[in-house]
Amino acid sequence: MTGGPPRLDLLVLGAGLIGTSLGLAVRGRWDVALHDEDPAVLAAAVARGAGRAWDRQQGARLVVACTPPSVTARVLTDAQRAGAGRTYTHVASVQAAVQRDLGALGADLSAVCGGHPMAGRERRGPAAGDGELFTGRPWVLCPSGATAPGALQDVRALVLATGAEPLELDPDAHDAAVALVSHLPQVAASALAAQLLRRPPSSVALSGPGLQDTTRIAGSDPALWGEVLARNAGNVAPLVRALAADLAQAADALQVLADGAPSVLSDGPPQVAPDGAPQEPADGAPALTVEQLLQRGVQGRHLVPVKRGEPDEAFVSVAVSVPDRPGQIAGVLTSAADGGVNVEDVRVDHVPGRARGVVELLVRGPARGRAEQVLRAAGWDVVGRGAGPG
Amino acid sequence: MTGGPPRLDLLVLGAGLIGTSLGLAVRGRWDVALHDEDPAVLAAAVARGAGRAWDRQQGARLVVACTPPSVTARVLTDAQRAGAGRTYTHVASVQAAVQRDLGALGADLSAVCGGHPMAGRERRGPAAGDGELFTGRPWVLCPSGATAPGALQDVRALVLATGAEPLELDPDAHDAAVALVSHLPQVAASALAAQLLRRPPSSVALSGPGLQDTTRIAGSDPALWGEVLARNAGNVAPLVRALAADLAQAADALQVLADGAPSVLSDGPPQVAPDGAPQEPADGAPALTVEQLLQRGVQGRHLVPVKRGEPDEAFVSVAVSVPDRPGQIAGVLTSAADGGVNVEDVRVDHVPGRARGVVELLVRGPARGRAEQVLRAAGWDVVGRGAGPG
Repeated sequence: MTGGPPRLDLLVLGAGLIGTSLGLAVRGRWDVALHDEDPAVLAAAVARGAGRAWDRQQGARLVVACTPPSVTARVLTDAQRAGAGRTYTHVASVQAAVQRDLGALGADLSAVCGGHPMAGRERRGPAAGDGELFTGRPWVLCPSGATAPGALQDVRALVLATGAEPLELDPDAHDAAVALVSHLPQVAASALAAQLLRRPPSSVALSGPGLQDTTRIAGSDPALWGEVLARNAGNVAPLVRALAADLAQAADALQVLADGAPSVLSDGPPQVAPDGAPQEPADGAPALTVEQLLQRGVQGRHLVPVKRGEPDEAFVSVAVSVPDRPGQIAGVLTSAADGGVNVEDVRVDHVPGRARGVVELLVRGPARGRAEQVLRAAGWDVVGRGAGPG
Repeated sequence: MTGGPPRLDLLVLGAGLIGTSLGLAVRGRWDVALHDEDPAVLAAAVARGAGRAWDRQQGARLVVACTPPSVTARVLTDAQRAGAGRTYTHVASVQAAVQRDLGALGADLSAVCGGHPMAGRERRGPAAGDGELFTGRPWVLCPSGATAPGALQDVRALVLATGAEPLELDPDAHDAAVALVSHLPQVAASALAAQLLRRPPSSVALSGPGLQDTTRIAGSDPALWGEVLARNAGNVAPLVRALAADLAQAADALQVLADGAPSVLSDGPPQVAPDGAPQEPADGAPALTVEQLLQRGVQGRHLVPVKRGEPDEAFVSVAVSVPDRPGQIAGVLTSAADGGVNVEDVRVDHVPGRARGVVELLVRGPARGRAEQVLRAAGWDVVGRGAGPG
């Protein structure tokens, strides 16, 4: 490597799903070289057209490590020592730990700006690479206090070139945010799904969309998530503890109700927990009743964007009962589209036996009337379903 | 009322969503009378064609209370004392408490068989009534030890007449099952969503489908759910306590990882919790590590039916990137249907800015290859997305 100006626009270290997708995303506009420890992976990424194999000589304006987070800091530091580039970034889903490791390894932190593309993935490897993977997705830029303005600029240029939406957060703020919106829900879903193992498998025969939704992400890869959670443990631990404490209070409140044997013959369940030790949390805050917890849940839920950046309450559902056979969901959606109704989300609930299902369309509140009218006019069986104790 | 044979097939007490839907479901085949304390509600149900107004004289083969659970036992007992019918049932989402109340009120339990149609609802009242509401849904029949065979037979006949699928469980088994698959997820989702209130609202800006799924049912009606949970508190409390305990253990394990400052410079996070008090639960069972919790979550998730009665692992997702404008979801589904691909479920993830979205189709495992081929051939942009730490 010479001390001259970088010849490459981008050097991608790690040619898996993300690395290959990056190369594909800027193909034809940026001069990209790829490197991977595994020659077969590298060859596959090159064959996909993500870039050419790195000659280990040419320097790049920007070096991006698309490696597992456990090796990210070392890969970047080694590349920096070899003079492989001007600016260095990575795509780790936890930022502060990588930043600490870079410091411990003696990297030049002024040339480093971390990043995290919020692009989900199910399959891995270059074959799954997709030049549109980042299009329209948030990509968090995480400059540290040491990051030089030019380095941030170089990484921002990459984000824009992929079609992603740059969003700037310092590494600690990033990690705190993903702890709340991603890592805590993962732990909660896993713990909830794990409760099902305490009962005979037949117990889930009555389950419906509620259990389906709340446990969906419990199916994620434990090894990958174990690493993510370990590296963000400082942020995740207090959130999990607070959730556990709220649930323990709810269990106490429910036990009081159970012990009191609330009956229709009384005036109904007590709305506040009685005075007493079990309902009084250690910090002296007032105990949470079950209904208060449910109400706080509704308030919290209203903060969750359905369409990104818009709260849940802006949308309502319109449900259609259909025969459970191919083409019915498409038919309902086609009728909605033909009627000019913009469907924001779709849910399907199947049923056995008589073989009918329910297709729920999520639309903006004001569009509900029109959606129902359009669907009924097209001959669909609009029904009054939705969330409830069933 | 006379002591002669019942003249009506069905007397519906409470003409809201469920009562009206019942009348509509058997219309033209059963002779139905309706009653409601609210004359306006009764008139609306009659106007919908759910039945005629009860004259308070004619007896019925079957009397069904479609009232809030807090008054169900009293309504049925009063009706029984008045000799309104031969067999009595109800539709409460918690069974044992109603059964206890019936006993306490001195009802003739041999003529009573509880029931619970697993039909969700969002809107209430007779206007939302739908004759297809029960079609293909499970309807749990809950005979007590005292229920006479003829009473069970009468209620089963109603279930079959509505098109629902009868499923027999004793009241305690029913309540234990719904505690696990419905009431526990509700408390968990509410508690998780409530954590969002502990942080500034801007914290959810990075949220994606994971948070969306896990908190969806947190938006349910707190008053309704408060009553349901109170009446099933004896079953729900220990489940919530076990979930809280698992989460407290996970918080302990995460705190150990945080205190140990796991670093890429070490050999990675410890895979087992170190010996010591904080990780050792009170009952002496071995502590659960974070990765073990995640693995148990995967196992539990595999028990959750996606299409009712079939486990999650039987299905895979195929993702398509589409412009975020009306008709795209319909287009993708139509292409799949035209290609003979049976889509089991659909998920939509919107993105801002560049305005593209991802439509995820859930198909049976073996159908994935064909689904991808069919969609690509139709010109759709099949991408490699899915659940992951993103």
